[in-house]
Formats: sequence, structure tokens, C-alpha cells
Amino acid sequence: MMGKVYLVGAGPGDPELLTVKAVRLLSGAEVVLHDALVSREVLTMISPAAELINVGKRAGHKLLTQDEINALLISYGRTRATVRLKGGDPTIFGRAGEEIEALRKAGVAYEIVPGISAALGAAAAAGISLTDRRVASQILLTTFSRGIDGSVMDWGCVTSTTTLVLYMPGADYAEVSERLLGGGLPADLPCVIVSQATSSQQQLRWSSVARLASEERLPAPALLIVGRVASRDVAELTESFWSTNRKDPAFEQASVI
Amino acid sequence: MMGKVYLVGAGPGDPELLTVKAVRLLSGAEVVLHDALVSREVLTMISPAAELINVGKRAGHKLLTQDEINALLISYGRTRATVRLKGGDPTIFGRAGEEIEALRKAGVAYEIVPGISAALGAAAAAGISLTDRRVASQILLTTFSRGIDGSVMDWGCVTSTTTLVLYMPGADYAEVSERLLGGGLPADLPCVIVSQATSSQQQLRWSSVARLASEERLPAPALLIVGRVASRDVAELTESFWSTNRKDPAFEQASVI
Repeated sequence: MMGKVYLVGAGPGDPELLTVKAVRLLSGAEVVLHDALVSREVLTMISPAAELINVGKRAGHKLLTQDEINALLISYGRTRATVRLKGGDPTIFGRAGEEIEALRKAGVAYEIVPGISAALGAAAAAGISLTDRRVASQILLTTFSRGIDGSVMDWGCVTSTTTLVLYMPGADYAEVSERLLGGGLPADLPCVIVSQATSSQQQLRWSSVARLASEERLPAPALLIVGRVASRDVAELTESFWSTNRKDPAFEQASVI
Repeated sequence: MMGKVYLVGAGPGDPELLTVKAVRLLSGAEVVLHDALVSREVLTMISPAAELINVGKRAGHKLLTQDEINALLISYGRTRATVRLKGGDPTIFGRAGEEIEALRKAGVAYEIVPGISAALGAAAAAGISLTDRRVASQILLTTFSRGIDGSVMDWGCVTSTTTLVLYMPGADYAEVSERLLGGGLPADLPCVIVSQATSSQQQLRWSSVARLASEERLPAPALLIVGRVASRDVAELTESFWSTNRKDPAFEQASVI
């Protein structure tokens, strides 16, 4: 039998935010290689008959190198229905590039199945439109990683109508705040930290670029949305909405701050 | 009965790329208000019992104003299970901001259900990682619309490791090319036009910022990915992959150029 590797986005956490295609592939997979960030609820969607391999890293403890993961994908993918399951969307901060190239070079069939990236899950959870046309015209999806050439990212390019979404901001909010200020963002620019978006442990914290430095830290995975779309009046309205809508099963257990 | 409005992302076109939650809500909806861009295949997922209202515009012919849409959402949402179905993701170029605010002000319960935004569908279709860490470190999701203050967007801010995703580039590729060059992007920077991503009519055209000007135009909806991730060798590998993988039902009818 000819195998194939499906690089599948697991979405932000809520298993109902898997695509129909992802559910079909997970229920029929013979092998699933998944990251540590894929939620436990999503893992329950995998066929009990499938071989399950955790290739992720947790708290700095690396389970497998990228080369080892590539080799496994090629080996399984030649003959078996193999799913490579990644948190969010595989093409956005999912390190799919090297795996795609390895599969191509080895002549193993593959397909990318998109997923709900963390930014989209967080925006939905926070009730904000990332491109609200009254205050925003574009979105920069970025991280604090240094650029390819080792240079620090150019934050000065962010215009007043750019919504900045910072993936994996880390636990040191003071440093995040300092780097955003150093990048030329105004101290009073609103932002919101979204922790464990769409999961039952979801938390939101509305803040500003300057106040962020003294916010209590929220559990990972977290994401920071910075820009006028995260403004205070939106926050207040959202808070009152959330507190009166707790009966909705989708948000029943959500803790909103 | 208490009603509620669900702002639901319809994804890029393929109904299998709907989320599980979207399918559940569409099959149980009493009223669905949808945009013109939502694919016919996705519309078949809606309960036959639901009242279906096309509020979109097609070829400049506007069916309803934003205020009229807001009023309908408030009116239906008070008492009925109402889905506001938008192409892609509601928070990214989906004009959800005004609808969210109108619902908040009217005290109507609502919830945002994220969808696969066009950029994610197109990247998956083209087989490229938008943040391939060897050549890209961030993604700018943008359009040619003018900024909030009427100014032309600042394209000069795009670094050599930024992947630029241009939503709704329009049919005049010569103008698109000129504006990208005017924004400081190199003439030989690779790009790929993805037309009707994930649908059976999907087409890809690999090009560069300069050559784009003379490319034959592809049907809307289309999206342009610009950056080193859209490089020629990736294109060639992808083309050979696609031509040898036509038997996969998911891509059987896809026309790849």
C-alpha cells in the first residue's frame, strides 16, 4: 500500500475547532506523530488503533530532533497513513518547512491540512476583529525570535493601524513590554493576553504596552494581541458580555479576568 | 426562547475545511445570513429548515448595507439561533467589528467561531510554510486598501524575512506589481497567486514581483503570497509533486499551473 503524510493543524485546543477533514484523518490514521502542544482533548479524536508518537518538547526537554522527526515521517509515510499533528496551523510557526522539504526530497506523498491558528482562536475568544476597519488595516503575525540573520525584529515598522499578534511571548512580561516600547509602540497602546485560548482553562487579561510589565503571568500557551482593536471599551463590553453569558456550554468553565 | 448570533468562519471553500463546530451550528441554525463569497458546497451544509439570507455583494452590486445587516442580526438574534456566515475567518478582513459592536450595544448574545482564513488555505494548497524558519520570521496579512487615515499602506516596512500575504489583490496584476515595487520589494522576489484555494477550481501561478505584471489573470477569489517562502525551487518541487499526486481525491480536479 502507498502511504502518505498529512501535515494536519490541530487548532488552538478545543476539539470542536478541528476541521472536518482533520477529524476524518485522525480517526483513520495508522500512525500519528504529535507535538506536546496539541491538547489532550484533541488527542482523544485519534483512532485507538493508531500508533501514537509524541515528538514534541516540553519545558525545554527535547524528545526528538528535527532530523529524527523527518526520518520518522519518511519511514512511516512510505507505507502507512501517517498524520503529523501540529498545534494551530502547520504553515504558521509550525516548523513545517523542513518536514515538507524532507518529504519532497524523499518522494513521499504529503498533503497540508490547515488548522485554526492561535491568533484566530485568541481573537475569537477575546471577541475582537483583528482588522476592524475603523482602527486596523493589517495584521503582523510575529514572535520575539531573532530574524534569520540574527538581527532583532524591526518593530518600528508597525503602523498605528497594524494589529500585532505576538506568538509565544514568554513568561517575562516586563521584557515583552520593554521590547515593544523599544520598538516604538506607544505606552498606552492597548493589548490583551490570551492564555489557553478556546480551552476550558482560557483566560484573558486586558492591558496596555506599559502596564503589561506588571501583569501577573498567565499559563502557556499564551498569545499577545497588541493594537487599537484591543481597546479598553471593547474590553469592558466583552467582560460584561462574558459574565452574563456563562450559561453557554462553550464558555461555561472559562475564567475571564 | 433566547436567541444568539454565531459569527462563523466558513473557511476558504472546501466544506471539509469547516470546523466541527461550524458544521454543528449550520445544521442547527434557524437563520443563516451569508456573504456572496461563501462557497456553494459550504451552503449545502446548512439545515434545509433554516431561513437563508444572502447579504453579500457580487460584482459591486450591494445587496444590503452594513447598517441593514446589523439591524437584521439584532432582530433575528434576539429570539433565534442565528448564524452569520463569513468566508474565511470572521476576524480577518471579515468586517466583523461593526457587527460585534452592534450586537453588544443591543445586548444580543453572540459568539465568534473561527474559520480557516484564506491565507492558511492558500499556503496549504501551495505547499509552503509561511514562516519557514530558514527564510521567514513573520507574516504580514494585508490588502491594497488605503489606511484608516487615507494614506497608502507602508510597504517599506516589510523586511526580507517577512512573508507578505495580500488579500483581494484585484485583477490588475500590473498595478499590483507596480505597487509592490513602489513599496520597495525586490523585482525578483518570488510570489504565488492562489486562485479559489482548496476548491475544485483551484489554480496556482508561481511568479515574481516583476513578472507578476504580465501574468494572465486568475479567477477571484484570489490571494497573493509574496516572499522567499514562495521561491522557485519550492515551486518546482511542488509542481512535480502535484503532477504525480493527481490520484488523491482531495486534489483530483485541481488544475495546477
